[in-house]
Amino acid sequence: MSFSTLENRLDRCSINTAPLGHRLPIEQPLELIARAGFGYVAPWRKDMQGRTLSQVRRHLHDSGLKVNAYCRSTFIPSATRQAFDTAIADNRKAIEEAAELQAQCFILVVGGLPGDSRDLPAARAQVAEGLAMLLEHAKQHDVALALEPLHPMYAADRSCLSTLEQALDLCEALEPGSYRQLGVAVDVYHCWWDPRLHEQIHRAGAQNRILGLHLSDWLVPTRDLLLDRGMMGDGVIDLRGIRQQVETAGYDGAVEVEIFSRDNWWKRDETEVLQRCAERLQRCC
Amino acid sequence: MSFSTLENRLDRCSINTAPLGHRLPIEQPLELIARAGFGYVAPWRKDMQGRTLSQVRRHLHDSGLKVNAYCRSTFIPSATRQAFDTAIADNRKAIEEAAELQAQCFILVVGGLPGDSRDLPAARAQVAEGLAMLLEHAKQHDVALALEPLHPMYAADRSCLSTLEQALDLCEALEPGSYRQLGVAVDVYHCWWDPRLHEQIHRAGAQNRILGLHLSDWLVPTRDLLLDRGMMGDGVIDLRGIRQQVETAGYDGAVEVEIFSRDNWWKRDETEVLQRCAERLQRCC
Repeated sequence: MSFSTLENRLDRCSINTAPLGHRLPIEQPLELIARAGFGYVAPWRKDMQGRTLSQVRRHLHDSGLKVNAYCRSTFIPSATRQAFDTAIADNRKAIEEAAELQAQCFILVVGGLPGDSRDLPAARAQVAEGLAMLLEHAKQHDVALALEPLHPMYAADRSCLSTLEQALDLCEALEPGSYRQLGVAVDVYHCWWDPRLHEQIHRAGAQNRILGLHLSDWLVPTRDLLLDRGMMGDGVIDLRGIRQQVETAGYDGAVEVEIFSRDNWWKRDETEVLQRCAERLQRCC
Repeated sequence: MSFSTLENRLDRCSINTAPLGHRLPIEQPLELIARAGFGYVAPWRKDMQGRTLSQVRRHLHDSGLKVNAYCRSTFIPSATRQAFDTAIADNRKAIEEAAELQAQCFILVVGGLPGDSRDLPAARAQVAEGLAMLLEHAKQHDVALALEPLHPMYAADRSCLSTLEQALDLCEALEPGSYRQLGVAVDVYHCWWDPRLHEQIHRAGAQNRILGLHLSDWLVPTRDLLLDRGMMGDGVIDLRGIRQQVETAGYDGAVEVEIFSRDNWWKRDETEVLQRCAERLQRCC
């Protein structure tokens, strides 16, 4: 089987609004992304500020873009039961928003250690408990939930879910068998280093659980733990190899660009960033 | 079984010379470390500069300190065969130095992606090949080799060996059965986040392969990928919990402090750093 590049296939590609720096009101990025030829967008909740969801839905309709994912959950592990309940309520609301935007999935970044806790197993237990509650809500609103394991360097403050294996274990515990409502998003930045990556992508595909593929690149050196992701091709990740594994495992959804880059891409004009994304997706991925 | 603290057990503890910033000629840190009551030291190869090994050995003898580990290997994966051979030759020399210093083990930080490679499996294959060669040399010189998996955030530039599981897989491939010459160093900074940590510590202990336990702490926020490790107790790692797992698995060797901290501890006086290490080891670990 020959593996095809993304040349002339920007219709398969998505732009997460983060690489554009969240500077413009959402209708402008939507127009720019569509005009650049992309088929999908992955907006953030913060993009909705000052807009009603029906306004945004109309802008989406006008742009012709499909929403492959809606970003993202409020962190679940909390220092008190009250804070936990508030986090769950907020995530329920977000799931309803995802439904209203007809997003293909809602991205779950689960959160790290709450308060001054050093207890990772306890944080993970809170995540499992919270997800079970959200899964019910997602079923009612017909929203797919995509667990996104984050790089282990975020285990303390963003995600106690660090590997694809761990995310899939959780999927199987909460939704035995194969995919109905709960799956995973494979972000190359978070999992490229993992010696079990190939095996776990295969496992995820066999259960039909791959709901997203996020691309960026790992820069050497990396100067900031959060805001120094690279443009595809500028780093060391075997992007084409991982995309091939994910698609061989059965994924045929959007290929999404998600880059946080305070000192480089966020300083550039949105049109330039989109142009570079388009070029690199077709050439390096 | 009650699990004992390190109170009044600094004789079990080791100071890696890194936390002292490598500013003083080695004989001075040795004297300071011994005077502060520690039983062990883990020197670096760079500490030997300008000294003969027999001089350093005499200083070690005078101090009364034992050498629990000698830091560390030259990176193995290389862009050319010639560079690979040079790296192996240099590591052979380091193994001989470790023998001369009567170090209880030689620390192997294996290296990341060579040149502009994006091929992690190839880098890992080079590591396996190089280790097989070094293992022979280590046997001849009766030096124990301790593979130290590093945090996944170093996969590109320092270690394509990222998890304890991966290190143990390599040990079993190169030295089937249980420990004779090849084991692992468990550094909490590198592996605290790992959902398989507990299980893999148990596995390592069952094969008698735990050759070192390194302590520091994960700060939130972490401001630099390499040089912002925290003093024990200042971060979020469950230090006592991990030490308990490691010792329950059978390890009774040195408990070593290894902190890289450009903007904090490396700016402080060596005596103050040692005092703080002593206090935190006894109180938080």
